[in-house]
Amino acid sequence: MTSCVAEEPIKKIAIFGGTHGNELTGVFLVTHWQKNGAEIQREGLEVKPFITNPRAVEKCTRYIDCDLNRVFNLENLSKEMSEDLPYEVRRAQEINHLFGPKNSDNSYDVVFDLHNTTSNMGCTLILEDSRSDFLIQMFHYIKTSLAPLPCYVYLIEHPSLKYATTRSIAKHPVGIEVGPQPQGVLRADILDQMRRMIKHALDFIQHFNEGKEFPPCAIEVYKLMEKVDYPRNESGEVAAVIHPNLQDQDWKPLHPGDPVFVSLDGKIITLDGDCTVYPVFVNEAAYYEKKEAFAKTTKLTLNAKSIRSTLH
Amino acid sequence: MTSCVAEEPIKKIAIFGGTHGNELTGVFLVTHWQKNGAEIQREGLEVKPFITNPRAVEKCTRYIDCDLNRVFNLENLSKEMSEDLPYEVRRAQEINHLFGPKNSDNSYDVVFDLHNTTSNMGCTLILEDSRSDFLIQMFHYIKTSLAPLPCYVYLIEHPSLKYATTRSIAKHPVGIEVGPQPQGVLRADILDQMRRMIKHALDFIQHFNEGKEFPPCAIEVYKLMEKVDYPRNESGEVAAVIHPNLQDQDWKPLHPGDPVFVSLDGKIITLDGDCTVYPVFVNEAAYYEKKEAFAKTTKLTLNAKSIRSTLH
Ligand SMILES: [Zn+2]
Ligand SMILES: [Zn+2]
Repeated sequence: MTSCVAEEPIKKIAIFGGTHGNELTGVFLVTHWQKNGAEIQREGLEVKPFITNPRAVEKCTRYIDCDLNRVFNLENLSKEMSEDLPYEVRRAQEINHLFGPKNSDNSYDVVFDLHNTTSNMGCTLILEDSRSDFLIQMFHYIKTSLAPLPCYVYLIEHPSLKYATTRSIAKHPVGIEVGPQPQGVLRADILDQMRRMIKHALDFIQHFNEGKEFPPCAIEVYKLMEKVDYPRNESGEVAAVIHPNLQDQDWKPLHPGDPVFVSLDGKIITLDGDCTVYPVFVNEAAYYEKKEAFAKTTKLTLNAKSIRSTLH
Repeated sequence: MTSCVAEEPIKKIAIFGGTHGNELTGVFLVTHWQKNGAEIQREGLEVKPFITNPRAVEKCTRYIDCDLNRVFNLENLSKEMSEDLPYEVRRAQEINHLFGPKNSDNSYDVVFDLHNTTSNMGCTLILEDSRSDFLIQMFHYIKTSLAPLPCYVYLIEHPSLKYATTRSIAKHPVGIEVGPQPQGVLRADILDQMRRMIKHALDFIQHFNEGKEFPPCAIEVYKLMEKVDYPRNESGEVAAVIHPNLQDQDWKPLHPGDPVFVSLDGKIITLDGDCTVYPVFVNEAAYYEKKEAFAKTTKLTLNAKSIRSTLH
């Protein structure tokens, strides 16, 4: 078939947990799979479960010196190793050595990085590149397999907001984010959902490697537009909280004039502009320090060509 | 009236926030009231809002060196001040100096200590002494005022489990615990509920001071029986999580044979014994390190005599 994209078969996969040490579902699953990995093994594939920030996991904190999930740029990865570097920068170099190097032929084919959020986002897949036929096909497969359980795709391709994520060392980086779950807590329902997402992702890769052709498909994605900070006072302290009408309403349309924040004095701040947006990461604990009360997204459809492994 | 207990009028009240620095509702309310305290002022009363663990608040962490809410015993409070003491022990001595001394005539009459939990406990009042007519009357007033919103009373009087809480420096210590709310997050609904609890508590004290007689009353309380740890493996790691049937079911009856934990292998652990219990603090984030998956309570009724201030 002329319209079919031939892609390299997948050989090496890593599943990262503990990139944020207090997001426990990934920590728990990866630790379990390191002892008993039968359910993540697939024939002809190397699948490596790995704890990326063990010191943060031990302290049950997001990070030790700085956010591991923001330091995988070439500047940090090429710094001369020194005890003076932040712990997470040193760890990033180790991870890049083990699973990269980033942007090289030797890097792992796929990295799944497991996260939790305190936001009511359900099962979320994070896509960094809107042109990846392979990942759009994979996400389509996962969404279809999980249905009727919803699974959303958050596209973080953006002209100025850059992430330098841990998973970005892979040829195909996949962020998996499941919530709501408080930091430091393990919920059985969230655990089950994340485990099913990984199962379907690995099944997809196995089918792909075995030569199955995936016909063209389309998925709905939510593309990052901008981040919105909390209203703050002169001292920089949060001066209003997420309005009850917006709390827990991730992925739901938010219209101009809808309430967004409410202060202790009862003052309500509404959505300005004239676009309906779709909020995500509403009231995520870790983003207070990043000055992000929620992110605005726009909904669009991504299409993927048919794909098939080059082996067949 | 012969059956009426004459109690001293209340003069000094403190409202503590930030005893755990990542439980943000109390931090937010207390910080607000320090700038604008009109809503907590009552005639003839001193009401002092106070951040108890400012360093933990600044870092948005539960504590710096040890749990401030467990160090208010006489041994810690009488230690010679030294830079080698844990930060929270030094801070406890300062707080005891400002609001105590504990067990003395000079101590504050009432301390409200504001907490959040990741458990689905709703509005909870914590009682340390089942014989306090004054607090049973206050809790009865708060429960009645909040209805139909439920407000539960957790009685932590126990022969061996001792707490040494921050609020225990007061003649009448009141713990206020509202959830579910993740650590590091401010939810508008939780904020509103805690604020209403404080309003009704202060109204009660004002009525009491003005000479109102409160007739005999009874309240339902949940008394701590024992704490239950997670199943753990040889290395001490959590080996099973709270079963979905128990998650979020604080205060609901749990019968012998009901599922309590589930492991990744699908193994289910059920409630043993032959008593129905009422679980609280189910899956509280901060209690993983305290080896408490939940606490079992028993339901009972406490009665209070009629009370009236001695001023009238
Ligand atoms: Zn994360
Ligand atoms: Zn607390």
